[in-house]
Amino acid sequence: MDATRFDLAVIGSGPAGQKAAVAAAKIGKRVAVVDRPRQLGGVSLQTGTIPSKTLREAILYLTGFRQRTFYGRNYAIKEEITVTDLAFRVKSVKDRQEEVVRAQLRRNGIAILEGTARFADPHTLEIEGQGGTRRVGADFILIACGSRPAHNPKVPLDGRMIVDSDQISNMDRLHREVLVVGAGVIGLEYASMAAALGTRVTVIEQRDTILDFVDREIVDALVYYLRQNGVTFRLGETLASVEKEGENRVVACLESGKRIHAEALLYTVGRQANGDLLNLPGAGLAADARGRLAVNEHYQTAVPHIYAAGDVIGFPALASTSMEQGRIASHHMFGVRDTSSKPLLPYGIYTVPEISVVGQTEEELTKSKTPYEVGRARYEELAKGQMLGADSGLLKILFDPKSLRVLGVHVFGDQASELIHIGQAVISLEATLEYFRDTVFNYPTLAEAYKVAALDGLNRVGASQVETSARSQSATGG
Amino acid sequence: MDATRFDLAVIGSGPAGQKAAVAAAKIGKRVAVVDRPRQLGGVSLQTGTIPSKTLREAILYLTGFRQRTFYGRNYAIKEEITVTDLAFRVKSVKDRQEEVVRAQLRRNGIAILEGTARFADPHTLEIEGQGGTRRVGADFILIACGSRPAHNPKVPLDGRMIVDSDQISNMDRLHREVLVVGAGVIGLEYASMAAALGTRVTVIEQRDTILDFVDREIVDALVYYLRQNGVTFRLGETLASVEKEGENRVVACLESGKRIHAEALLYTVGRQANGDLLNLPGAGLAADARGRLAVNEHYQTAVPHIYAAGDVIGFPALASTSMEQGRIASHHMFGVRDTSSKPLLPYGIYTVPEISVVGQTEEELTKSKTPYEVGRARYEELAKGQMLGADSGLLKILFDPKSLRVLGVHVFGDQASELIHIGQAVISLEATLEYFRDTVFNYPTLAEAYKVAALDGLNRVGASQVETSARSQSATGG
Repeated sequence: MDATRFDLAVIGSGPAGQKAAVAAAKIGKRVAVVDRPRQLGGVSLQTGTIPSKTLREAILYLTGFRQRTFYGRNYAIKEEITVTDLAFRVKSVKDRQEEVVRAQLRRNGIAILEGTARFADPHTLEIEGQGGTRRVGADFILIACGSRPAHNPKVPLDGRMIVDSDQISNMDRLHREVLVVGAGVIGLEYASMAAALGTRVTVIEQRDTILDFVDREIVDALVYYLRQNGVTFRLGETLASVEKEGENRVVACLESGKRIHAEALLYTVGRQANGDLLNLPGAGLAADARGRLAVNEHYQTAVPHIYAAGDVIGFPALASTSMEQGRIASHHMFGVRDTSSKPLLPYGIYTVPEISVVGQTEEELTKSKTPYEVGRARYEELAKGQMLGADSGLLKILFDPKSLRVLGVHVFGDQASELIHIGQAVISLEATLEYFRDTVFNYPTLAEAYKVAALDGLNRVGASQVETSARSQSATGG
Repeated sequence: MDATRFDLAVIGSGPAGQKAAVAAAKIGKRVAVVDRPRQLGGVSLQTGTIPSKTLREAILYLTGFRQRTFYGRNYAIKEEITVTDLAFRVKSVKDRQEEVVRAQLRRNGIAILEGTARFADPHTLEIEGQGGTRRVGADFILIACGSRPAHNPKVPLDGRMIVDSDQISNMDRLHREVLVVGAGVIGLEYASMAAALGTRVTVIEQRDTILDFVDREIVDALVYYLRQNGVTFRLGETLASVEKEGENRVVACLESGKRIHAEALLYTVGRQANGDLLNLPGAGLAADARGRLAVNEHYQTAVPHIYAAGDVIGFPALASTSMEQGRIASHHMFGVRDTSSKPLLPYGIYTVPEISVVGQTEEELTKSKTPYEVGRARYEELAKGQMLGADSGLLKILFDPKSLRVLGVHVFGDQASELIHIGQAVISLEATLEYFRDTVFNYPTLAEAYKVAALDGLNRVGASQVETSARSQSATGG
């Protein structure tokens, strides 16, 4: 057992851990990152973001999903899409991405320690690896240990027919009917992918509403679209039990008395943070019931030299925000000034089609009694939307009807996660709706939706003399 | 022959004409748009932008082009892609888009006059249609009559094997070898589409360089990529003659003595504006040798109540810029104040992969002796690039090394025409490279390239203490 001393030891090599480690290494600090064998990159790389988003691209492609507008609903490129087709592509991207992460850590001189970490004392980690246990001391420690799917005694996972989101890659075939329990981001992403594959999906959710942090109209558009594509929503339904029926059938019994049959069940309700696995008391810390740690705005825990970032601190638990948290934590430790004020966080939800939002929602603005108006553009109005067969999109801009300042942008449709960054720049840089009106967009693009939505919004508030007269003109048919 | 009086008569219903007409109608003006039968929407809709960009999407899809990274170079969805497969989709989008244009004009109460227009006098057009000739008077006239492919006596077009860009849809089959004469935007777009279809393409261009308004590094990336995909470039070569060899072969003879054989030839050198077809002398105007009209900054011709916009005034002759010109012209006629200063024009080139640029190039900055530094991101570094199989992209940001103000953004790769609008907002709103560093991007996205490029750029100038130390750190492997 050898003792090694680092300026910073990071527990977990996911997005938060990577960015924190690199930021510290870049100012000359000695840094170690600890992760379990075959877990480099964390859940994000191994079973979460990377595999699921790669799977999504493969499904979109192999099913010819976007081509159905042209060639009809039953169009698919491959007559029979197999798990092998999908797994091949996921493995290819995972392998490359793992190499990218490893190379970045090495290039920055960061030690990669393989093993399971637990606190021996507030400055010392015990790392249990293949070759035994070693002790590592550090001035600062970042807990970026991630999370795992939460389990439920009512749901007897078998890793094959009844699975959680970590076990999806174990499924040996594609099913015709699937139950998804939990209509959070993960549940909806997989439900929409399965629907794109032609699977009949039933989504069961205890609450009456879904994705409460997203604009209602956008959520409604997603729900409408998914229903059109064979998804049934059972909201406000509590799971009573899950039972197997023979070798290849499963049934979910609901407290309302309904029994829903399918070939497989995916359980996606909640995540359990891994804070419970670290012997936190050894560091003078305690996690909550869901394994999470509380932090201040600098991502410091109750023990000032120990920071936490990523899934282990809870919402929003996205790779993008976790990276930012890791970077901010690392800079705070070593006194690097961060020039940025609190950045405007976008959210990307990789359903089919995808959702992305930035800024405030109608619900938030109503609650805070902030006056607002809305401009909308539908993809079907856009030449590019028609070309792509992506005619179900909606982009809406919320803005102050007096100052015309942009308050929020909400997009449902192809490329939403890319397009949102145009709106994000305009909100961050405090520009108005007029920016979109006066900007020349490439033609044809989906980005044009900003201009269409801005003109629609300006019409509504009579902010532009031109556009106002236009409406009366158009109403009288003159 | 009946005389009707309008506030504005627009010659041509392409992007410039449409937007000018709608802008005038929206402030209550009586507007007529004249176009020839089956030409609604102009070249953009009938034979130009819409068909070519739709064709491009169809080719990208049917060839499985982006999938080759995963499944190998010879991968294609359809064993044999036919002209019918491609034409079907183009027709579908054209029909829908034509309906969109017609509905927009009608909704705004704009008269659509079918026929060929010529000036009777500066305020009167004679329109020769199916039912005879009618006269239309107008206080203002906008010439937005577009352009047609220029012809060359050395190139005996036959509309089948030797074609111009308007005749591509006449081709009855896909060829194994094609010659493209002219390496302008149109020539390169079709050359890259043909290459994606597996066609061997030779591009012949009289000048030694191509796309001179685009950043050199971006052009080089395109050329490299196209060569990898079976395109041969013959630059600095002058066409001596084009001859048919039997029924199904064509040979281009070059002044250097080379003879290049192929199954078809596409001639794309230059466009002839349609100004020569309007009896301009009747309005007291004259077009130049290439049919173009000169205009001032308000798009007024030498006769103040006659304006011109779009292809008929020459470069850049893009749908996006033509729309803007039409709108500005219309506003100027009727005294509507335009709030915008001169907008920053992006260029989109729909090669495979596409190019989009905004702001200044390295060449322009060098010429004007403006100091600059460069930050680069390659798609292969991005998780999303890997997922899409789009690993040949490059995004570069040019910026002022002192103020860090962004001077230009140049993108080669998937979604370039969409992504450019993020950079355009940051340049227009006068923000710095730090905006990209401090912004949280959705993960995984291609938009992340902005952050990667910004960090690379900041490293180069030592603008960020963090990033500077990083480099030395990484260099010493510490």
